[in-house]
Amino acid sequence: MKKVTIHITLKQGVLDPQGQAIQTSLNNLGFAEVEEVRTGKSIELLLENRENMDSRITEMCDKLLANPVIEDYRFEVEEAVRT
Amino acid sequence: MKKVTIHITLKQGVLDPQGQAIQTSLNNLGFAEVEEVRTGKSIELLLENRENMDSRITEMCDKLLANPVIEDYRFEVEEAVRT
Repeated sequence: MKKVTIHITLKQGVLDPQGQAIQTSLNNLGFAEVEEVRTGKSIELLLENRENMDSRITEMCDKLLANPVIEDYRFEVEEAVRT
Repeated sequence: MKKVTIHITLKQGVLDPQGQAIQTSLNNLGFAEVEEVRTGKSIELLLENRENMDSRITEMCDKLLANPVIEDYRFEVEEAVRT
């Protein structure tokens, strides 16, 4: 059993209106030190052990989880114990 | 200048319909090894150096970025160079 954490972020240069809205709100709340905000997603998968796991995860990201045109992704794999 | 990455996840026990939808889709695409999916958010801040940075970031999370009733968060601070 493996726990995979996938981090998905917008590529450099892609506009992030949600991040801009968060920045404006933080500035308005008195956090003037905030200069830039970028938002992203994280997805945690619990996987049965399989061969070629890394390439299968890459396939999941390219096919469904991320949009490779505007998003970058990276993932970490660790041992998981079912709780 | 600091780069802060905030990871926001749903608390254990809180339903995650988006994660369930992703799991069903992955299973349907032939990834039968996927047993559970949980989604989360990440927010990257670029901050000017300030005193009490950690407590100010905690305040940002509690006031705006996370919903402490249903979400957990943790953050990492690293040095940033403006590009």
